[in-house]
Amino acid sequence: MKIVLAPDSFKGSLSSSEVTQVMERAIKDVDHSYTVVSKPMADGGEGTIEAMLTSRKGKIVNVQCTGPLGEPIKSSYIVFDSNEAVIELAEIAGLTLVPTSKRNPDYTTTYGLGEVILDAIDRGAKSIMIGLGGSATNDGGLGMLIALGMKARDKDGQPLSGYGLDLHHVHGICFEDLDKRLKDVDINVACDVTNPLCGARGASVVFGPQKGATDQQVKQYDQSLHQYAKIIEDNLGQSYQNIPGAGAAGGLGFALLMIGGQLESGAQQIGEAIHLEKEVQEADLVITGEGQSDEQTLYGKAPCYVASIANKHRVPVVLLSGSLSGEQKSLNDLFTSCFSIVNRPLTLGESMNEVETLLYEQTIQIIKLVGAFSKR
Amino acid sequence: MKIVLAPDSFKGSLSSSEVTQVMERAIKDVDHSYTVVSKPMADGGEGTIEAMLTSRKGKIVNVQCTGPLGEPIKSSYIVFDSNEAVIELAEIAGLTLVPTSKRNPDYTTTYGLGEVILDAIDRGAKSIMIGLGGSATNDGGLGMLIALGMKARDKDGQPLSGYGLDLHHVHGICFEDLDKRLKDVDINVACDVTNPLCGARGASVVFGPQKGATDQQVKQYDQSLHQYAKIIEDNLGQSYQNIPGAGAAGGLGFALLMIGGQLESGAQQIGEAIHLEKEVQEADLVITGEGQSDEQTLYGKAPCYVASIANKHRVPVVLLSGSLSGEQKSLNDLFTSCFSIVNRPLTLGESMNEVETLLYEQTIQIIKLVGAFSKR
Repeated sequence: MKIVLAPDSFKGSLSSSEVTQVMERAIKDVDHSYTVVSKPMADGGEGTIEAMLTSRKGKIVNVQCTGPLGEPIKSSYIVFDSNEAVIELAEIAGLTLVPTSKRNPDYTTTYGLGEVILDAIDRGAKSIMIGLGGSATNDGGLGMLIALGMKARDKDGQPLSGYGLDLHHVHGICFEDLDKRLKDVDINVACDVTNPLCGARGASVVFGPQKGATDQQVKQYDQSLHQYAKIIEDNLGQSYQNIPGAGAAGGLGFALLMIGGQLESGAQQIGEAIHLEKEVQEADLVITGEGQSDEQTLYGKAPCYVASIANKHRVPVVLLSGSLSGEQKSLNDLFTSCFSIVNRPLTLGESMNEVETLLYEQTIQIIKLVGAFSKR
Repeated sequence: MKIVLAPDSFKGSLSSSEVTQVMERAIKDVDHSYTVVSKPMADGGEGTIEAMLTSRKGKIVNVQCTGPLGEPIKSSYIVFDSNEAVIELAEIAGLTLVPTSKRNPDYTTTYGLGEVILDAIDRGAKSIMIGLGGSATNDGGLGMLIALGMKARDKDGQPLSGYGLDLHHVHGICFEDLDKRLKDVDINVACDVTNPLCGARGASVVFGPQKGATDQQVKQYDQSLHQYAKIIEDNLGQSYQNIPGAGAAGGLGFALLMIGGQLESGAQQIGEAIHLEKEVQEADLVITGEGQSDEQTLYGKAPCYVASIANKHRVPVVLLSGSLSGEQKSLNDLFTSCFSIVNRPLTLGESMNEVETLLYEQTIQIIKLVGAFSKR
């Protein structure tokens, strides 16, 4: 029997590769002869690099760049096959890099991402995947664009440096010095939100508050992002701000679209990058999972993508989640079976403390049941 | 696919036949072509009659008898095939029939059981199964024996009436008027405890307190039961008080042994009475379950018996429990797989409130998984 393990992380408890390790141990304890292929998944957010390194041999590139608050930080990205790079925004301008007391979109920037993109291009990258998600910024990608060579000036002709605050003063831009090599690089952006840049569903209104924006700032940023986008769009004669995903990562989606990036489902891009389908089509069973599932939150997430691949090849696919809630019928349309790791009444805290044991035990139960019937 | 459902009750939530109804609905919702055979189980305690009536056509016999406090009560038992009777002690002298404020072993009696046994014999019963468990009494079966015709007298030669209090005054007994027909009746006692009549593991010390006995009464009853048993044993020239189970149901085990009863595992007796094995040996899957499972409490309980039958015929057997705790390896030696109905972190109260939905959903998951592999 060949079993493919392709879970997302159990957020707050186990990374996706830790999940596969626990599952694999359980499977081998049931029957050592079973073939296990671990393909930990991610959705482009935190854990993307770790997940991808489990499935593919990649080289970690350490890099010094500008952090979300403008300070120099040590970060890293990975390079596969010499010309394919994977960058995780959360490692460069992530909310987790900014102490709660300092969360304020005025003083955060995506400048570091531009530097890391250039570093990857310097090393020969022809294809760059960028995982969005968890950004601390609301700068519309201004910081990144400036790092890549775009010039932005205020009404007095003074150059702007690319913090959120600078957005309110953008008066003119110039692409003359934008790095020419960008044209020859495929930029694939792993992005799971479809919000436009501005308006009621825009970056500032929906995601601003969690980055520390006050009501006043939310309004101000919504206006300034629109104004900034309009200047760029007028310059290029093309519109980006209403493309789904333009509002991702504080408007970084807009800037990435503008330099030719393709925004696609993170799970799908990662699944393709780790060649998940090739393994799934030869499998007898696929197990996926995540920390918390319900019919709403599942749309477009990693387990959903894994199920779609398994269903395409008619391979049974089990969802093993920390918690299942909501109406289960829609989950059962997608998955052969859905189990929680919880094996008795307990609190969320208890289940997180015991996550490894619970996950191990529940994997045992599933594999033993499947084993009993696949041998008959 | 043929699926046999043989759960115990989920105590405090669902009777075993209610459990099978929910499971059957789930199975039919997955695949209407599956054959479902419902064989709700019991262990001889509360719910035994209800469980047996699901599997076998029996006649309910309504009867008036003496209740645990000496008052007349309406009770019932069942008769199968005209000469086989099943009596549930809990329906005649059960703790649930005595308000907490009135729980005192001095004033409770098993007299009613003797009356019901005679009623069954009057109706032609040749085989009587008696489910022990949940008794309110500590009378050593004195009440039942007196109802069956034994005479007990105090030191002044005055007849005793068979309450707990009378135990302390038994001076002489006489079997001359004991109903002669008892000799021709098989008495099978469903009993899951192995306690002797007296001593540290005896009826009074272990079970007395939950029936309202004070420390003083526990000591007194332990001595009196020993004295009472000695009088009977000297009379018959045979010893019963140390046979495992003599201490069951406040020493009723002793009295039943004495009149020729066979004490055996309740689950096994009920399993045999409902012809479980015949169905299991032709099944593709057996599902059992109960409210709460761990490696300790499972010994000898209904799911354990069901598993032993399934294992004998190499049929996969799944345990579906309200709660699984303790070390699961020993459960997995017995069951193919063990699942809890709990599908997310929640409290015991929440899981009991939602028991039907949770049980239904978890059954769906198991059946879909089995279905995916049994068809391959």
